[in-house]
Amino acid sequence: MIKVSIIGGSGYAGGELLRILLNHPKVTIGQVTSRQFAGELVSSVHPNLRKMTNLTFTHPDGSHPDGSHPDGSRPDGHPDVYPDNLSHCDLLFVALPNGISMGKMRNYMDVADRIIDLGSDFRIHDKDIFSKWYKKNHEDPELLNKFVYGITELHRKEIREAKYVSCGGCEATASILALYPLYKNNIIKDEVVINAIMSSSQSGMSVSLSSHHPERSGVVRSYMPTGHRHTAEIEQELVGIKPLISATSIDIVRGLHVTINTTPKIPITEKDIWKIYRQEYGDEPFIRIVKERSGIYRYPEPKILQGTNYCDIGFELDTSLLDTSPPGTSTNRLVIMAAIDNLVKGTAGQAVQDMNVMFGFEEREGLEFTGLHPI
Amino acid sequence: MIKVSIIGGSGYAGGELLRILLNHPKVTIGQVTSRQFAGELVSSVHPNLRKMTNLTFTHPDGSHPDGSHPDGSRPDGHPDVYPDNLSHCDLLFVALPNGISMGKMRNYMDVADRIIDLGSDFRIHDKDIFSKWYKKNHEDPELLNKFVYGITELHRKEIREAKYVSCGGCEATASILALYPLYKNNIIKDEVVINAIMSSSQSGMSVSLSSHHPERSGVVRSYMPTGHRHTAEIEQELVGIKPLISATSIDIVRGLHVTINTTPKIPITEKDIWKIYRQEYGDEPFIRIVKERSGIYRYPEPKILQGTNYCDIGFELDTSLLDTSPPGTSTNRLVIMAAIDNLVKGTAGQAVQDMNVMFGFEEREGLEFTGLHPI
Amino acid sequence: MIKVSIIGGSGYAGGELLRILLNHPKVTIGQVTSRQFAGELVSSVHPNLRKMTNLTFTHPDGSHPDGSHPDGSRPDGHPDVYPDNLSHCDLLFVALPNGISMGKMRNYMDVADRIIDLGSDFRIHDKDIFSKWYKKNHEDPELLNKFVYGITELHRKEIREAKYVSCGGCEATASILALYPLYKNNIIKDEVVINAIMSSSQSGMSVSLSSHHPERSGVVRSYMPTGHRHTAEIEQELVGIKPLISATSIDIVRGLHVTINTTPKIPITEKDIWKIYRQEYGDEPFIRIVKERSGIYRYPEPKILQGTNYCDIGFELDTSLLDTSPPGTSTNRLVIMAAIDNLVKGTAGQAVQDMNVMFGFEEREGLEFTGLHPI
Amino acid sequence: MIKVSIIGGSGYAGGELLRILLNHPKVTIGQVTSRQFAGELVSSVHPNLRKMTNLTFTHPDGSHPDGSHPDGSRPDGHPDVYPDNLSHCDLLFVALPNGISMGKMRNYMDVADRIIDLGSDFRIHDKDIFSKWYKKNHEDPELLNKFVYGITELHRKEIREAKYVSCGGCEATASILALYPLYKNNIIKDEVVINAIMSSSQSGMSVSLSSHHPERSGVVRSYMPTGHRHTAEIEQELVGIKPLISATSIDIVRGLHVTINTTPKIPITEKDIWKIYRQEYGDEPFIRIVKERSGIYRYPEPKILQGTNYCDIGFELDTSLLDTSPPGTSTNRLVIMAAIDNLVKGTAGQAVQDMNVMFGFEEREGLEFTGLHPI
Repeated sequence: MIKVSIIGGSGYAGGELLRILLNHPKVTIGQVTSRQFAGELVSSVHPNLRKMTNLTFTHPDGSHPDGSHPDGSRPDGHPDVYPDNLSHCDLLFVALPNGISMGKMRNYMDVADRIIDLGSDFRIHDKDIFSKWYKKNHEDPELLNKFVYGITELHRKEIREAKYVSCGGCEATASILALYPLYKNNIIKDEVVINAIMSSSQSGMSVSLSSHHPERSGVVRSYMPTGHRHTAEIEQELVGIKPLISATSIDIVRGLHVTINTTPKIPITEKDIWKIYRQEYGDEPFIRIVKERSGIYRYPEPKILQGTNYCDIGFELDTSLLDTSPPGTSTNRLVIMAAIDNLVKGTAGQAVQDMNVMFGFEEREGLEFTGLHPI
Repeated sequence: MIKVSIIGGSGYAGGELLRILLNHPKVTIGQVTSRQFAGELVSSVHPNLRKMTNLTFTHPDGSHPDGSHPDGSRPDGHPDVYPDNLSHCDLLFVALPNGISMGKMRNYMDVADRIIDLGSDFRIHDKDIFSKWYKKNHEDPELLNKFVYGITELHRKEIREAKYVSCGGCEATASILALYPLYKNNIIKDEVVINAIMSSSQSGMSVSLSSHHPERSGVVRSYMPTGHRHTAEIEQELVGIKPLISATSIDIVRGLHVTINTTPKIPITEKDIWKIYRQEYGDEPFIRIVKERSGIYRYPEPKILQGTNYCDIGFELDTSLLDTSPPGTSTNRLVIMAAIDNLVKGTAGQAVQDMNVMFGFEEREGLEFTGLHPI
Repeated sequence: MIKVSIIGGSGYAGGELLRILLNHPKVTIGQVTSRQFAGELVSSVHPNLRKMTNLTFTHPDGSHPDGSHPDGSRPDGHPDVYPDNLSHCDLLFVALPNGISMGKMRNYMDVADRIIDLGSDFRIHDKDIFSKWYKKNHEDPELLNKFVYGITELHRKEIREAKYVSCGGCEATASILALYPLYKNNIIKDEVVINAIMSSSQSGMSVSLSSHHPERSGVVRSYMPTGHRHTAEIEQELVGIKPLISATSIDIVRGLHVTINTTPKIPITEKDIWKIYRQEYGDEPFIRIVKERSGIYRYPEPKILQGTNYCDIGFELDTSLLDTSPPGTSTNRLVIMAAIDNLVKGTAGQAVQDMNVMFGFEEREGLEFTGLHPI
Repeated sequence: MIKVSIIGGSGYAGGELLRILLNHPKVTIGQVTSRQFAGELVSSVHPNLRKMTNLTFTHPDGSHPDGSHPDGSRPDGHPDVYPDNLSHCDLLFVALPNGISMGKMRNYMDVADRIIDLGSDFRIHDKDIFSKWYKKNHEDPELLNKFVYGITELHRKEIREAKYVSCGGCEATASILALYPLYKNNIIKDEVVINAIMSSSQSGMSVSLSSHHPERSGVVRSYMPTGHRHTAEIEQELVGIKPLISATSIDIVRGLHVTINTTPKIPITEKDIWKIYRQEYGDEPFIRIVKERSGIYRYPEPKILQGTNYCDIGFELDTSLLDTSPPGTSTNRLVIMAAIDNLVKGTAGQAVQDMNVMFGFEEREGLEFTGLHPI
């Protein structure tokens, strides 16, 4: 039994962590912080947790010689970084909005020996690449190399020994898991075109006209035709691959789906590809290859993954291009699809999977939910 | 550890049963029947169960002297009733479309000592009332009284001793649970107006133009302004209450919501009502009174109940009518709201809750899922 | 050809007015005001109007001796009421948020001889009833009686002569039109239970957590189980009727649907009711009685009314209660359904219909759009 | 004033044609055929047309010496091809399911001098290419070259003289219109990756489990990752371009959106691209270039196009790839987005636009609807 605390427990990632951890048999939850909701019941913000927990939110800051207490503001106007209200715990989950944790991470390191960051501040190992994509300098670049990138399937061994883990971004997680076996086995050309379909929970809880229901409902919104930040993560993890991402938002709350257009370097059959995926992922508890000849769920479908930690992956060779290729092969085009729940495998579930590895728990512990159908 | 089988495992109720039972620590699943999908993987119909189970569907019928095998049709043209392929088990769940199980129930009684029927054939104890609402005669009326009505909160004691249980209809379950404390304490007048909001999963898996996506999407469809069959169940369970139901379908897949307009017999305060609900339901594991002063989930909301066995109940006294009443009271109008997941508390979850009671398991066993937010 | 201007053209009602008026053959649009978007293209806020118009928003206020210009704020801090930037026009539409127009109306009366207000400030003729429901005193109660209530079907004759018209609220409009023939013919008892299903556009363009897509999506939210303000309008127009409204929000952007439970005073047949509706509404261009024996659009369905000015009305007598009544009759229960597009018949379309009547145009002019199917 | 008839008026394309033509000032509608609904009111199938028309469906076949009447079946079992019930008209619209019109077209040519086919049978000029993509031989290949491909913007001159026009497929229409200016000006490399997002109305009115609401709701379904038939149309119209289409269905009823990844042959700026689109499309009544720096409708959005004949087109150069290119240019990646209403610009609206050109009417006639916002 370990004691964990959560920094930033009122957002969607924090809420999902709570949902999972409250049912985890090896974990007790110490503190859950929220500046805005300090003192209130956790279930007042996450109504699905009613009757599950009486936890209340803790304010992340405490009294301090310079008078930062009680509202946490520092006299010098700097965003407060004193985690005085935090008690020691075995593992700290940091679920803060992007850009907030980098200046506070050293303080958090005093609170717990192990940290899992769910945000984007420590995903990129190279500070220049961070600057290029996040359009600002990293506040604590020396820490960047202390974090293991958190996609368990790629870094299980390092995570087992790690003190600090930074979970992958949701879009990057789906794309990397989809491409990794092909990349590792040197099957595809460098340039891949990724079309990502995004849900509204990815933008978090802050309201704006773009998330206002009458405007956001029913959309097919090209919110990032080019320039998606997760490009940097994919390039870091799959060195040499050149991902061309276009991200489109639609009217779903949870879920992420990628369609990836790749070009095989050599003639290849679907059977070959099956073999490669089975070889790399055959023992993975949270990856399923979904490719069926009939039925209506022939390929990865995010809606039935809601609440689960699965990454479903499928593929199709373009048989319409076979004319110029030997029978059953194509050197021309291989389309890969992958789907996850962005808040689970894309964030909180990935974090718990990493925790399970770090502490030697069974990797599926707490993550057994299998999803709903119909939904 | 008990062994259970499921008759009719390819429908939505059957799939939901499978999802719950596969995670139930006290249960192993024997057979799951399906005429249409016999021989196929259970997960080919319920894609959320991929990697969870290798179960395949069993054809419900077997070889038989009169030659009904192999397609199950009887030479005399009668819908087949020989459950020859079924092995003995401790508990049989029957999840067949309405009207199918009544002619087969005696055969099922040979297969298992205990039966839980999820359909509507054995909910009504009186054959004349059955005929009135179902527009046909019951095929085996003598069995009607052998079934306990399955809403656990009302019949826990009888269910504990029961061999045969018939789960309540989803709309009836929400309405009865919402009204029961007021009814029992003699608070409200007989006539109650129930506006039920329904989801598409309630109509099952058979396709039709009315469930065709372009037609069904975005609807506010008065599919049963009057004449809802669940009236009979409510009248049976809450004798004297006269429910006036209007049922409207909207564009949700799961979930059921009722808004019930009632008239208090006497001046009453919201505090009084709180007290009555707490008194009747304070110890119930699956009932939550939801009534908050602020926030956006002030009242029962079916979307956060998806996958859970909760029935959330809320209420509001009409303060605009207070002018003619003593302060804080109203003799005029009390509105009750309730929400459930129609496939869980309204069907499969209720069945498992009953099973837990029948076999002395902890009542929450297998039903711990707490729901997702956001969703 | 008349010249009209719109005060408050950047909201949803203002945008809908623009859409209709830009296609109206008898109207030219003078000014369209917006404080927030002054100087910007109308189509930057209402993207459906791209390529339709080059109109820009006018700031409602201008330079003024007391220095309120240029941002429109008055030195004394009072919300600005000087419509200096407004030019004279034949008709002024006022589409401001509730509570804003009452203090400014006299100024608007200088700008145009005729005014149609789309907000709620001038719907209620009695200032005490206004205070009761709007929880504040009216700022200019002497004007209340100068406005004709704008439901054309009830007040066509007065509107023809009127200088000032105040459109009905969307929920009130649907309920009043549904009940009026029964009320007028003295068919039903006073107490009616109205269950209204509401869309997200009714709350306007201001963002909040309650309209945040991840929270608002998929809801069945009891946002006003009792205490709906439109009660006051219904009581004013149908004197003696006592409406008990419960309003529930669902995941649609446009549309409003009411299910009204009424009690006939005398035995009555469906044929009688048909006759009454035909008699009252047979010549109405925007009312359709929708009641079919088969098909999937048997009753009023708001989704196919999007963009149209129709109010569809249907009804059903409760035949399950016939046991105690003479054949084909019921003294017990008559359920009425009605549907509108809240932004058209519930707001901007009603306003244009009134304009057509006021200026002697053909009543359907500009309002011919027939709706989409499928949608 | 011309007289037109519609073959196949009960489907979604036929319904949309009716909606548009009933409001067209230069057109009267003669006959509207439907085998299934012969004799019934057109508005019983298309409920949005209630109160707009009293037209009834005509059975396409009539009495005939060989006895095909009255149900239209021929004694030899061949699907009936005798259009005996059809009267002469000026223009015949054929809105039949794919594969049905090719065997009947010669008969239709007796009925009218001019024909516009909304289906796919006459889009491809080459019978071998037809066979490759449609997996069957064309029944009347000699007619293929008699049809002009119906995208008005590309073939206006030929359409003006044409007797027979075949409208483009919806996906092809959006893709071709998006790419045409770049193709014509020789800006991009041949290979383009097209990700198409599809709506449920594209599959028509036939029901199946894949269109069953509980299954179809909320999907992100890779229904055609490769092998989309519209590839053939794009290759025919933009000779040399090699489109790699992946089509994904989501939970919308109307609308089609494409994101096209292209590679400029030469360094190019966004200003250059603006210029090219303006030059080709500056005078087009139904094409809008949508590319804004701010706001939430910065790029083409199908939801606000519902009911309209617009094709909105936007683009973005990938500035993240600028490092290796001269300032403001990129040789690497240009993403194009386009959106249409699949039932209007993708089918019925395109047909009416072609009709307007064929008969010398103003091209916007009947197609003025500007779309709704919010929706």
